[in-house]
Amino acid sequence: MQREPQAFDRVLSSMCTEPHPVAREAAERFLATNPGDPGTYPTVAALEDDAIAILGEIAGLEDPAGYVASGGTEANIQAVRIARERAEAKRPNVVMPESAHFSFQKAADVLGVDLRIVPVDEQYRADLEAVRASVDSDTALVVGVAGTTEYGRVDPIPALAEIAHSADAMCHVDAAWGGFVLPFTDYDWHFGHADIDSMAIDPHKMGQAAVPAGGLLVRDESLLDELAVDTPYLESTSQATLTGTRSGAGVASAVAAMEELWPGGYRSQYARSQNNAEWLADALEKRGYSVVDPTLPLVAATLPRSTFDALRAKGWRISRTATGELRIVCMPHVTREMLASFIGDLDQLEVRASVPVVSDD
Amino acid sequence: MQREPQAFDRVLSSMCTEPHPVAREAAERFLATNPGDPGTYPTVAALEDDAIAILGEIAGLEDPAGYVASGGTEANIQAVRIARERAEAKRPNVVMPESAHFSFQKAADVLGVDLRIVPVDEQYRADLEAVRASVDSDTALVVGVAGTTEYGRVDPIPALAEIAHSADAMCHVDAAWGGFVLPFTDYDWHFGHADIDSMAIDPHKMGQAAVPAGGLLVRDESLLDELAVDTPYLESTSQATLTGTRSGAGVASAVAAMEELWPGGYRSQYARSQNNAEWLADALEKRGYSVVDPTLPLVAATLPRSTFDALRAKGWRISRTATGELRIVCMPHVTREMLASFIGDLDQLEVRASVPVVSDD
Repeated sequence: MQREPQAFDRVLSSMCTEPHPVAREAAERFLATNPGDPGTYPTVAALEDDAIAILGEIAGLEDPAGYVASGGTEANIQAVRIARERAEAKRPNVVMPESAHFSFQKAADVLGVDLRIVPVDEQYRADLEAVRASVDSDTALVVGVAGTTEYGRVDPIPALAEIAHSADAMCHVDAAWGGFVLPFTDYDWHFGHADIDSMAIDPHKMGQAAVPAGGLLVRDESLLDELAVDTPYLESTSQATLTGTRSGAGVASAVAAMEELWPGGYRSQYARSQNNAEWLADALEKRGYSVVDPTLPLVAATLPRSTFDALRAKGWRISRTATGELRIVCMPHVTREMLASFIGDLDQLEVRASVPVVSDD
Repeated sequence: MQREPQAFDRVLSSMCTEPHPVAREAAERFLATNPGDPGTYPTVAALEDDAIAILGEIAGLEDPAGYVASGGTEANIQAVRIARERAEAKRPNVVMPESAHFSFQKAADVLGVDLRIVPVDEQYRADLEAVRASVDSDTALVVGVAGTTEYGRVDPIPALAEIAHSADAMCHVDAAWGGFVLPFTDYDWHFGHADIDSMAIDPHKMGQAAVPAGGLLVRDESLLDELAVDTPYLESTSQATLTGTRSGAGVASAVAAMEELWPGGYRSQYARSQNNAEWLADALEKRGYSVVDPTLPLVAATLPRSTFDALRAKGWRISRTATGELRIVCMPHVTREMLASFIGDLDQLEVRASVPVVSDD
């Protein structure tokens, strides 16, 4: 095999990152284990308990229950599935802001529930009036996002939980990306702040674990029963995951990263990432681009499509929001030097664009 | 982290195995990539095309289409999902033999389809008369298994495909475990042998790749459209997988293992595993146990529960079929020496059981 993996030195678009060295080491050691078969692989099954314990601590959840999923998509699908199973409606619906991740669209397709997508306010957060107006007796779940994919915004989680419960619906928080930075902010986002029922929180994003290490947390362990199927030939009684065989590497690396970095390491990483985001936002603004205030370490700014394409042609891995803005995620591997080099390339393009083209150029 | 991964020297129950050294090396190199985001990680996305090309060759599929899934469970769920989307019935049903994997139960739960479970014949293969009697105009999918989880049996795939298509249903083959041994047998099991529509075939089982590396193959690429959701902010247009972020390690290790081992390495591994299974079956039969003939490298035998428990207490990772038989999977890491040591422990237990208990014992 001649192909070499992508280097991270120009990756500005990913919500994944280079695993922390201790996470990589643990992933390599546990590469050949399967937490989906705890009777055969008891050590990694015990590690999964450790992972859920630390995730619970991070997310303000006493007596935490849940499992290490393949990622935020699986955790979101499973949360919708729990709500569907609990609902009495013939055709349950899920109410969520338009800022929610497309995995909820996948969940709705797979699970046969209706999605009611409500607008966001001028701060890109779920519009509470719209949520209230959309919830009805068929609503199984209200979704709030703690760290949106496009602008890093945090929905008003306590109010969403209240609306959900007033309609006998459940409340799920998608903190897949935000969960490892929000503990160092003033936001109300977790089980300790609001009466939420479930959460997606991914060690393999800001948690610096190796892929695949997502997290599903539930307030009440009995919620996992909604997901369980009997597992003959495995020496365990049931399986609540969406996948069967799972990666022991993901589980072990999640534990290693969280034991190493929670809370001090994550706190300093948050500070570094947030500073970088603010520096980048500032640099873009100074150059006349319209920038969405980076309230978490994620920067969005308007940029002409031709400039975007030229930067991609220079090897920068950048992405766009649904409305076409440049979107840069300040993950742990994104350094100030990378951002300065990116801005340098942008400046060079702009200079060229402003110079009249001559035939020898 | 003090915990050490499970050694494989007593694992007789798993359908996963130690990754081949080249697969491990590739997994470690690609640990920090995400084929779920091909715009950001183009190299691993190209590797996934290589994986599907080789899987197609193994499974007799020209112009192969599909993707590297988290495992057989995801591939089976997705096959049911494709069939559900194609079906016109309001409540589609899936017809499958009772020998099919429990992931189809999970698929039915998640996707809201009915499962019609039909008996097997005296050879533990789908009973064709029962399948015919169960199929009706609401049938979306007929499932055949090529290498069952409990007894390693291969259903009559061409006949199942015929029954499926005569009812305008699709036909899916679960070769998650069998796919890397069946090419060296006389069975009719793949796209070249029968008019099947989709297949689960897992590199991370007999293919010796690292978890997670399952495989979903479809005869016609347009079938994947049934699974696609739009993916804003990713620099690719749509995503057909069930999970979002995926493990580049799994993809890279699948390609490395298959390039190294297909076909010669897999052929000799099959011969070794099959010989081991026959040796073990013979050893158990000689000791008076009733053994299911190992037509593929998987041995099932009746064994008293107390003996089973005593062997587990000695550290053997063994499992049972739904009816309680001992079940041993002769994976690549299972050597003749391991099996001889296992039989040695069994003999010791039997000697003890036949010695009258004295108070000093």
